[in-house]
Formats: sequence, C-alpha cells, structure tokens
Amino acid sequence: MNEKKFLLSDKQIPSAWYNVVADMPNRPAPLLDPKSHQPVTVDDLSHIFARSIAEQELSTERFIEIPDRVRELYRLWRCTPLVRAYGLEKLLDTPAHIYFKNESTSPVGSHKPNTAIPQAYYNHIEGITHLTTETGGGQWGTALAHATNIFGQTAQIFMVRVSYNQKPYRKLLMNVWGGNVVPSPSELTEYGRSVLAEEPDCSGTLGMAISEAVELAIKNPETTRYCLGSVMNHVVLHQTIIGEEAVLQMEMAGEMPDVVIGCFGGGSNFAGLGFPFLRKNLTEGAKMRIVAVEPASCPKLTRGKLCYDFGDSAGITPLVPMYTLGHTFHPADIHAGGLRYHGAGSTVSQLLKDGLIEAQSVDQLETFAAALAFARTEGIVPAPESAHAIAVAVREALQAKEEGVQKTILFNLSGHGMVDMYSYDQYLSGALGDSSLSAEEIARSIEASQKRVGLL
Amino acid sequence: MNEKKFLLSDKQIPSAWYNVVADMPNRPAPLLDPKSHQPVTVDDLSHIFARSIAEQELSTERFIEIPDRVRELYRLWRCTPLVRAYGLEKLLDTPAHIYFKNESTSPVGSHKPNTAIPQAYYNHIEGITHLTTETGGGQWGTALAHATNIFGQTAQIFMVRVSYNQKPYRKLLMNVWGGNVVPSPSELTEYGRSVLAEEPDCSGTLGMAISEAVELAIKNPETTRYCLGSVMNHVVLHQTIIGEEAVLQMEMAGEMPDVVIGCFGGGSNFAGLGFPFLRKNLTEGAKMRIVAVEPASCPKLTRGKLCYDFGDSAGITPLVPMYTLGHTFHPADIHAGGLRYHGAGSTVSQLLKDGLIEAQSVDQLETFAAALAFARTEGIVPAPESAHAIAVAVREALQAKEEGVQKTILFNLSGHGMVDMYSYDQYLSGALGDSSLSAEEIARSIEASQKRVGLL
Repeated sequence: MNEKKFLLSDKQIPSAWYNVVADMPNRPAPLLDPKSHQPVTVDDLSHIFARSIAEQELSTERFIEIPDRVRELYRLWRCTPLVRAYGLEKLLDTPAHIYFKNESTSPVGSHKPNTAIPQAYYNHIEGITHLTTETGGGQWGTALAHATNIFGQTAQIFMVRVSYNQKPYRKLLMNVWGGNVVPSPSELTEYGRSVLAEEPDCSGTLGMAISEAVELAIKNPETTRYCLGSVMNHVVLHQTIIGEEAVLQMEMAGEMPDVVIGCFGGGSNFAGLGFPFLRKNLTEGAKMRIVAVEPASCPKLTRGKLCYDFGDSAGITPLVPMYTLGHTFHPADIHAGGLRYHGAGSTVSQLLKDGLIEAQSVDQLETFAAALAFARTEGIVPAPESAHAIAVAVREALQAKEEGVQKTILFNLSGHGMVDMYSYDQYLSGALGDSSLSAEEIARSIEASQKRVGLL
Repeated sequence: MNEKKFLLSDKQIPSAWYNVVADMPNRPAPLLDPKSHQPVTVDDLSHIFARSIAEQELSTERFIEIPDRVRELYRLWRCTPLVRAYGLEKLLDTPAHIYFKNESTSPVGSHKPNTAIPQAYYNHIEGITHLTTETGGGQWGTALAHATNIFGQTAQIFMVRVSYNQKPYRKLLMNVWGGNVVPSPSELTEYGRSVLAEEPDCSGTLGMAISEAVELAIKNPETTRYCLGSVMNHVVLHQTIIGEEAVLQMEMAGEMPDVVIGCFGGGSNFAGLGFPFLRKNLTEGAKMRIVAVEPASCPKLTRGKLCYDFGDSAGITPLVPMYTLGHTFHPADIHAGGLRYHGAGSTVSQLLKDGLIEAQSVDQLETFAAALAFARTEGIVPAPESAHAIAVAVREALQAKEEGVQKTILFNLSGHGMVDMYSYDQYLSGALGDSSLSAEEIARSIEASQKRVGLL
C-alpha cells in the first residue's frame, strides 16, 4: 500500500513567508494614490492598514519571518496534508500523478485563515482593537471573525446583502466567533446610507461593502483598521505558507510537479501555492508550469486588459496596475462567489505579462463535473471555487493519457463546499448554464472604468 | 513549541478491529427473536444484514481483521489527528492535559464512514447491489451514500421528514454521492403508505424510517440488505478503529488518559474510542475511567432501565437487552439529533451494569456553552452531539483545577457542526432551554414499552 497522504509535524511549519517580488525580473509598477497619481507610501497605506502590513505590502525582501505567535496559531490546523489523488487517477485512467494540497482542513474550511491570523496579529500588537472588512460568499469574513476572536478584537463585517440572505450558515459561523455582521449596504456608514436612500432594496456588491468597511476604518484612526482577504501583496505573502509546505511534501513524495494549478479570484490561493514553486523556476532553473484558473464568466486574466484600475467598485482604493475587466464590471451570478472579482493582483499580472505563469478559463458545467468526479473518488466535496483548479487538473491528466506520457500535477484544494451546497443542487437538477460573455461587453466595461480612473 | 497534533501515517492504520465481548467478565444476554423469544442466529440476522455482518454481530473473537480494501479506503481520511487542546486548557486555567480525537476530518464530517465503508464492502462482496437505511440528522445517511457510491451500489435512504425539510444541505450531500433520499414516511413501502393513509402530514420518526428501510430490504432478498449506523455490536466493532489509533497516539504524546469521554446516542462513537482503552483496564490492570455522556433529555443510561426492548419504535427488530427509556419514548426536540435514541447497545449496557464504564448526562445549555468555548479556542465548530463530550471534558478539567491535581483527559470530537449551524443560532439568540423530564414520564414510557415487548 503506497502512502496517500504526506504529513508534516507542527515543528515543520515553515518559519518564513516568501515574497516573489524579490525574484521577479520585472517588478510590478507601483500602486498609485487615486487623487495625486503618485506612488503610495507606507504612510499612505497606514491610514487603511496596520503599519506592519503596509510595510509588507511594499516590501522587496525575499523572505519575511513568521512571528512566533502566528506560527503557534497556525498549529490549530497546519501543516495541511498533501494528498495523492489515487481515486481520481483511477477514474481518469491516466498515467499522470495527481496531488492536491488540502487547505479545506482549516477552522473555516478554506485557506483564508492563513492571512486572517497574521493580519489580526499585526493589528493587535499595534494596539488596534477593531477591524473592518467586507465579505461576499462569507469565507473571508468567517476567517477574520475567527482571528479577531483570538486577540480579543471586534470585527465589523459588511456582508453583501444578497449573500447575507442566501447564506445564513456563513453568517452564523461568523457569530460563533463573535463577529458583528451586517448586510451591506448598511446604515452604519455614510456611503451605505447614501446608497440606501437612493435604492432601499439594494442587494449590494463587493465594491460597496469594501467602501463601507474602508470608510469605517478611516473614520476611527485611533482604534480601527481595514483588512482585505486577497489581491494585495501582503495577503499573497501570508498565503505562501501553502506552497512552502507543499515543496517539502512533494520532496517527501519523491517528485516535483510539472504543473501547479490554483483557482483564481484575487490571486491569493493561486499564488500562495504557486509562488514557492515559481521560485524554483526563477532561481534554480526549474521549468514547472504555474497555471491560474478563472471562471469563463469573469475572465480578467485571459480576456482582460493590463492597466491601472481601482480595487473596488466605488473607486476609493489605490490604483493597481493589473489585468482587469474594469472596476465597473458586473460578473454573472455564478456559484463560485470567491472568483467574481474584476481584477488581479499587481504581482500576478506582471508575471503573466512576462510569460512566467499561465492562465486558463473554465466554464461552470465543466467545473461542476470535475467537482463531482473529485467528491466521488476522493471523498471531499470541494468548494465551487476550488473546483476550477480540479477541472484543469483533469484536463492535464486526460492530455497526459492521450499523449501517453507521465506527468505530475499539483493543485490547490483551497476549500470544501459543505456550507455551499446550494450550487450542487442547481447543477444536479440541470439548472446551471455556461458563460456567454461577448468581446463587446468586456471592451465596454474596460473603457467605462478607464474613464473613471482618469489616467488616459 | 510543543507538539500539538499527533499524526500517524497511512501505514499505521490499524489492521484489526477490537471486539470487547471477548474480554468482558459478563457477556451480554443474547438478542431475542421478537416472536419466538429465542436467541437470534446468524441465519436469522442474514435476512436483514449481509452474512459477514451477521457473523460479526454475534462474534466473540477478540480481534477481527480489517479487509485490505477497507484499509485502503480508510486512507481517504484516516488516520485522524489526536490533538492537544492547549487553547481550551488555557481558557480553563487548568492543570489538566486535554486531548481530543478529531473524527470530524472524514468525508461527511463525522465518525460514521468508519462503519459505512465496511458495511458497503461486505454487502458488495456478497453480491448485494442495493442498500437501505434510515437517517435522522443526516450524518449516517450521508456516510452510507458516500460508501455505496464507491462500490457502485445504490442507497435508498429514508430521512425522517422533519429533518428532510429542515436540513436541505444534508440531503444535498447525499445526492452528491448518488444517494436516493426520500422523506419518511414515504409511498415506497407498505408501512409508509399505511402511516400516510392515517396521517398524510406525518412528520416521521427514526422508528418509522427504520421500519420502512427494513421492509424494503426483506422484500428484495436477492439484491438488497439493510444497514444500521449505531447501537449494534458490528457497528461498535468497526468504530474501534478510532480508539486503536488513539492508543498509539497517546503513546506518542507520552501519557495515557485518566478519563476517556464520548457522547452517547446509540453508543458507536463512545465505544469506538473507549473500548480499546477499556481493554487495558480489563487485560492489563489499567484504571482509566471510560465515560459516556448523554443529553439530560434522553437519559437512558442515567435514568433508564436495563431490560429487553425493541431497537425501533414500530417493534419489528430483534429484542435487545439494554438500558432503555422504552421504545415508545419520544425525546424532546433537542439539537443533538444523533443522541435522541431511546436505547443503548447490549454490550455498553452490560458494561455499565458491571461498573466497568460510567455515564453522565448534560443539559443543552451547558453543552452549547462548552461548544462555544471549544470553537473559540480550538478553531473547530463541534457538532452539537460531540459538544456533550466536550462539556464533560470541561467539567473534569475544572475539577482538576479545584483539586489542584494533574489529570489527563481524552474526548472524542465525533463530528463538526458546519452543516448544523441552526442550533448555534438558537443558542446565541437565547431560544434554547434545558430539560425537565420527570421520573413519572420515564416510568410511564418504560412500562408502556414493556407491555408491547411482552416478556413480562
């Protein structure tokens, strides 16, 4: 009987996060202040984020040490298992070896606590007692509630109203960890009140929720800061714990991947797994393919444009140099809520432009077919987001079979889907469709957004 | 930094289940045929269960080898972690060492697949292609759907109608693994139709669902058998994989427990963890306390009577010598649905009578307070059932503090509560109450049931 799971002990939790910026041949263009159009500084960012986090955001250090307290808390669930998917291999009858990194074993069921805990920690040691954030599907809000509870902080979570109504379990999980959750737009902020005055039944967007969370943080500078769950460099940095462990575990398995795959929303679970392997390409001459997978209905990497754009829909964040569909883009109502984001991070975008990583898009039906094949062979119901990575792993495995070559595939199972079963119901009952996004729609959205950015 | 998690590799999955009957000073009285009142034989049981399972039910062998195929499938999630609850210890400021065995990491989020997989396997090798079962809260039905899907069998799951309506996610999980789920009472069986004819809106009971599942199995002897998720010896046997691993892991931790705790519904997760430790008491002179924890609203072990009773409400199963509240007992609508069963297994009952194990009961409010303390310190939202074990672990830890003695506590975290968040909502909003079951109610129920049993 071959080993199926590759496990690391608590003592093997990596001691540093990896900052890919240090090894990039071309570093990304700077974030810009939305008014002055000057590069943002640590001081600028410190109005929104804790100072240590602002420093990490702009850091070019190769490795950043993980604080002891954070490593201690990572022990709650880390190291996560690396698993050989023998069942899926058998179903596909492929010569490929398929591995996945199982991030679904965390307190909230996804990779999000990897960054929620250090974000809460850095704020805590800087005396910040209140944190604000937005959440869509609810994974990120849950992770922040869990983290703030540890440090005796309060979390004010603005949950997009449509999700608030559709996902009661997610809201309840946040409550269990003491998080305050309100549907957004809310009466708690000026911006929220202004939206509700115009449209009392507004169902909300992630952009609106970000605006509310940032407003509340900026207005209470003594006690409060804002936290973000993806996109930015410091978030990606914290998530590299995934890949650092996976490198050790692939060594235990006795092989290195030919292709490393992650689903792509804002980039943090993709980069978290991929960047430590990318380091081997950039510094040791390895030639692994690092593949980001986005939904066909929100295709910023495969059909978007690389330019400066806002991180939020309301247009109040710094400008980010990134592949984007335009910050006014309204993605279709697909079930992988965590991937419905208009832009990418600046680092991922630069790497994609330079051909150092790849991107693919997958339709909803292919995604759920892969999800079901995985659930039935490996016994884990994947989050709809993570199923995008599985779909491309299946593509790669079938291609290996067609070509009759051995290939080693690694993907990130970024979360489980136990709290998101509604989407499976829709798939099983035949109610889901595929994307039909036209080139004109995308061009229109980018153009409209670029006018608001005002750099043209 | 001390080790928090004690992990075993795939190769360390135990090779045999442990049958406590072999070491009992007094073996339990036999199961009786409900009509002839004669001890049931393997032949009798084989009309309901696969023959290998009927043999295991009546076996007195000390160890029963786990088939290779089952051990291979156990690798999907086993070995499960043993975890030192440093966070909970700190919160309670106790000198006690608290450990828990984390069975929530399985495909369905609980210990149930430990027996679902061997049950499906034995039926498969005997040529049985259809399995039937009942499910209340849904954990067991989900586990059987997962297991039958592996062997290409169909599962017909009768889900108590009230749960079917209240727990859509559980039903959907069964669908993901190909299970056929109908609300019970249903039109699929004679018994179901007879109930519906009298009461078209009947919300169902576990007893009715068992009757439907058994009827369907008995009527299709060529292809179909029935499966049960707790109570009986063969189920307890399969669950001892939990304790066999835990013994190895406590050795890794360098200490043995003073007290081993499991929540108690039909007995399978309690005995699964406890019996391998009990073996050390029975054969090696160890003196560990083995404690079963039941809800105060369904107190068969602490307030019931040891006598022959039916396993189901309709009165069609063999008669079981057990502590019971009477098979007509209707427990209050508490949120630990998996513990709302009127009886105990025959083995557990005999051990309790002989003073070789203990029993305690816990109220709902104490249970949820412990659940919240655990979720907030250890990062796992426990199933309401498992929280009963946590509550007694907390009691023991606080007692150790009061007495100023070190004590080592081990409990079974039999499942997580991510799909059962509604109960937490009720607790957090103050809507839950405690039990107020009178001695008269219990006596009345036992008396009425004993009349139907007809042995008096």
